[in-house]
Amino acid sequence: MRNDPGTRPHVVIVGGGFGGLYAARALARMPVRITLVDRRNHHLFQPLLYQVATAALSPADIASPIRGILRRQQNVTVLLGEVTSVDAANRRLALADGELTYDYLVLAAGAAHSYFGHDDWGRAAPGLKTLEDALEIRRRILLAFELAERERDPGTRAALLTFVVVGGGPTGVELAGAIAEISRHALAKDFRAIDPTCARVVLVEAGPRIVPSYPEKLSIEGVRELRALGVEVRTNTQVTSITPEAVHFGEERLPARTVLWAAGVAASPLALSLGVPLDRAGRVIVEPDLTIPGHRELFVIGDMAAFTHQTGKPLPGVCPVAIQEARAVAENIEQALRGRAYGPFHYVDKGSMATIGRAAGLCWIGRLQFGGFLGWLAWLFIHIFFLIGFRNRLIVMIEWAWAYMTYQRGARLITGDVRKGDV
Amino acid sequence: MRNDPGTRPHVVIVGGGFGGLYAARALARMPVRITLVDRRNHHLFQPLLYQVATAALSPADIASPIRGILRRQQNVTVLLGEVTSVDAANRRLALADGELTYDYLVLAAGAAHSYFGHDDWGRAAPGLKTLEDALEIRRRILLAFELAERERDPGTRAALLTFVVVGGGPTGVELAGAIAEISRHALAKDFRAIDPTCARVVLVEAGPRIVPSYPEKLSIEGVRELRALGVEVRTNTQVTSITPEAVHFGEERLPARTVLWAAGVAASPLALSLGVPLDRAGRVIVEPDLTIPGHRELFVIGDMAAFTHQTGKPLPGVCPVAIQEARAVAENIEQALRGRAYGPFHYVDKGSMATIGRAAGLCWIGRLQFGGFLGWLAWLFIHIFFLIGFRNRLIVMIEWAWAYMTYQRGARLITGDVRKGDV
Repeated sequence: MRNDPGTRPHVVIVGGGFGGLYAARALARMPVRITLVDRRNHHLFQPLLYQVATAALSPADIASPIRGILRRQQNVTVLLGEVTSVDAANRRLALADGELTYDYLVLAAGAAHSYFGHDDWGRAAPGLKTLEDALEIRRRILLAFELAERERDPGTRAALLTFVVVGGGPTGVELAGAIAEISRHALAKDFRAIDPTCARVVLVEAGPRIVPSYPEKLSIEGVRELRALGVEVRTNTQVTSITPEAVHFGEERLPARTVLWAAGVAASPLALSLGVPLDRAGRVIVEPDLTIPGHRELFVIGDMAAFTHQTGKPLPGVCPVAIQEARAVAENIEQALRGRAYGPFHYVDKGSMATIGRAAGLCWIGRLQFGGFLGWLAWLFIHIFFLIGFRNRLIVMIEWAWAYMTYQRGARLITGDVRKGDV
Repeated sequence: MRNDPGTRPHVVIVGGGFGGLYAARALARMPVRITLVDRRNHHLFQPLLYQVATAALSPADIASPIRGILRRQQNVTVLLGEVTSVDAANRRLALADGELTYDYLVLAAGAAHSYFGHDDWGRAAPGLKTLEDALEIRRRILLAFELAERERDPGTRAALLTFVVVGGGPTGVELAGAIAEISRHALAKDFRAIDPTCARVVLVEAGPRIVPSYPEKLSIEGVRELRALGVEVRTNTQVTSITPEAVHFGEERLPARTVLWAAGVAASPLALSLGVPLDRAGRVIVEPDLTIPGHRELFVIGDMAAFTHQTGKPLPGVCPVAIQEARAVAENIEQALRGRAYGPFHYVDKGSMATIGRAAGLCWIGRLQFGGFLGWLAWLFIHIFFLIGFRNRLIVMIEWAWAYMTYQRGARLITGDVRKGDV
C-alpha cells in the first residue's frame, strides 16, 4: 500500500445516490484518493420522493448536498459534472466539460424511466426519478384541481378530476394512495364549484397483482387498503396508448388529464458506452464480484447493474441492494490494495415496505408480513431513521405529525409556469 | 343591504399578497360575494423570500395556498387566473382565459422589477419577487461555488467567487449579509480546491447611504455589521452596465459572475390598462380614499398604488402599508353598502426592520432604534409571529434554531438545469 496522497490509487465514483455515497463512505479509511462525480449537487432520499410529488414534504426535506455529507471525509473530492462516456481500455472518463482518469471506477449512475419503446408517452405521463420530476407531478396534480374549479364542461371537469397511475409496484401504490388522500382530506373544503372528494384515482397494473415483488398476502391487503381510500385498482390491464386527454386500454378509453408513470425503468445511458452485454432493461450484466468482464478495476452497482448470480433474476432496484453492493465493492478494492483476490457479492434480503396513504402500510421483514397501521408505523420509523442528516429527520417528523393531526399537506405550491398547456 | 347571496354586491380582489388577502379577510362578515383572483395558487411571505434565495428556508416554509388560508370564509371564491386588463367603464376584467364582472374592484397586484430602462440587465442580474426568482438566485449562488471548485484559471475563479448585490435597501442588505454568511460558514469546509471564505460580496448603492428609508444612525450601524461579516459596502456608486461577466461603474470594471438586482421595482403592467395617471415608477396615483378619479368602486392598494396624501412622497412598498390600506378599503366598501361617504386613508408607521446575517439586525420601532443581536431577535420574533399558518411558524423556528446552532443551511439544492450557461 502506498501512503503518499499524490501516488495513492485514484478511485472515481460516478453517482451520488445510495450506491455511490455508501461506496465513498466505505472507502473512508483506505489509502486511496476518491473523486465522486454527480451531475446534481445533492443526494436524494428516493424512497420519499413521492411525498414531494404529493405535496407532503419539501425538496430540502429529502435531499442533502453531497459535499456537505462527505465534508469531513478528507480523502474525497466531490465534483459537479456530467459523465458522458467511459473509455475502459484507457481508464478514462469523458465529462461534458473535461475528463478524469482512474485506477478504480465505481459506476453507480442509477436508472431513468423507460416507456417500453413508447417515448412519446413521456410528455403526457411523467415518471418520478428526480426532484424536478416530483415538482412537475405536484404541479400537475394541484393544477388539475384548480382548472377543474374553473371548468364549466362536465366532461372536461371529470377528465381533470381523473388521476391515472400506471404501474402497480411500490411507487405506483404509494402515489395512488397519496393522491386519493389529498383529494379526500387536504383539499376537501378548499373549492367552491367542485367536490375534490369525487376525484377518481385509478391504479393500473399489467400483471395479475400489485406489488408483485411482495408476498401475495400483502398484495391482497394492499388492494383492500387502497380501496378503503377510494382508489380503483385495475390489475391485468395493459395500457396501449397515452395522450394528453386520455389513457387507452385496447378498445377502452379513459379520459384523464393527469397520468403518472410508475411502470418501467432503464439504466443510465452511460452503460452503453462500456461495450459489454446489457440486459433487456439496459442494465450492465455484472460478474459475481460486481466487475465487468475483462476489467477487474471497473465495478457497476445499484440500479445500473444486473446481478443475477443469486436468484437467476436481477436483484431489484432498491436502496438495500445498492448499499450492500457498495460495501462489497469497497471490500474488493481493499482486497486489491492488499494484493488479494476478490470475493463474490451476496445479497441479504431484509424485506420491503410501502405505505398506503395516511395510516396504512405493507411490511415484509424476513418472515414477518403485516399491513395496516402497524405496517405504516414500521415504515415511518425505518424511513425517518435512514434519512440522512439530523435536521431532515426532525423536520420530516414534524411535517408528518402535523399532517397526521390535521390531514393537511404543507407544500401545496404550484411553481413554474401555471399556464403550461400540457395539463 | 341585500341578503340574498345571488344579488349581493360582487367584490373582485386581484392579487393574493398581503393587500389582497387582508382585504378579503376584512370583508368576511359583510354581505358581499368576494372573488379573489391570483395567477399563483399561493400567498407568499415576501419579507423572508431572501432566506429561500440563500438556502436557509424551503419555498413551502414561506408560502401557503391561498384557498387553504381562506377555506373557512364562505363568502370568498378563489380563482387561479391571470388578469390582463381592466375595463373600468364597464366594470369588467379580462382574464387570460375568460372574464369577470364586478361591483367593487380591489387591485392589489403588486410590483415587478424595474431595471430603469436597462431591461437587458435582467438576464445577468435577476431580481427577487417570486419563489421562482428565489430558486433561480439560490441556483446561481450555489452553482458559482461548484464551478469555481472545478475552474483552473485564477481570473475566472475570482469572478465566480465575486457576488455583487445592486441596491442598498433592506432586500439588498439582507441578501448581501446572507451570501457572506453562507461563504464564511455553511460552505467553509465543503470544498477542496477553493476556499469559500475568500468569496467577495459587494453591496452597491447609488445613493450616499444604505437603507435610506431608515434613520441615519441605523445606516451607519448596518455598514458596521455588514463589514464585520466581510461584505464590501460601496455607496455613491452608480452601475452603468451589467454583462454576464462583469459589472461596470463608469470606467471601473468588476469581474463577477453572480449579480443580483435589489434596486428598483415597477408596478404591475395592469396599472397601464386603467388609463389614469401613473407615477414615474408605474404606480397608480390614488385619491385620499384609495380610489382612482371618477371610479368610486375601484380601489388600488399595496405596491401598485402611489399614496402621496400623507407625506408628499408615496408610501413605501412594505407589508404594513398594504395591510392597512386593505383594511381601509374594506371599511370604505362597508360605508358604501350603508350609503355613507368614504373616509380618507391614514397610514400609521410602526417602524421597519432588516436582518444582517446570522445574529445582527437593524430595528426601528417608533422612537426605538437599535441594531446588533437585539435587533436580530426582534426581527426574528416579529417575522415568525406574522408568518401565516402554525405549521410554517414551527418549521421555520426549527430551521432557524438548527441553522443558528450549526451555521448550516438546510436547503442547499441546485435544481433546474445545472448546465445552464448563464452563470
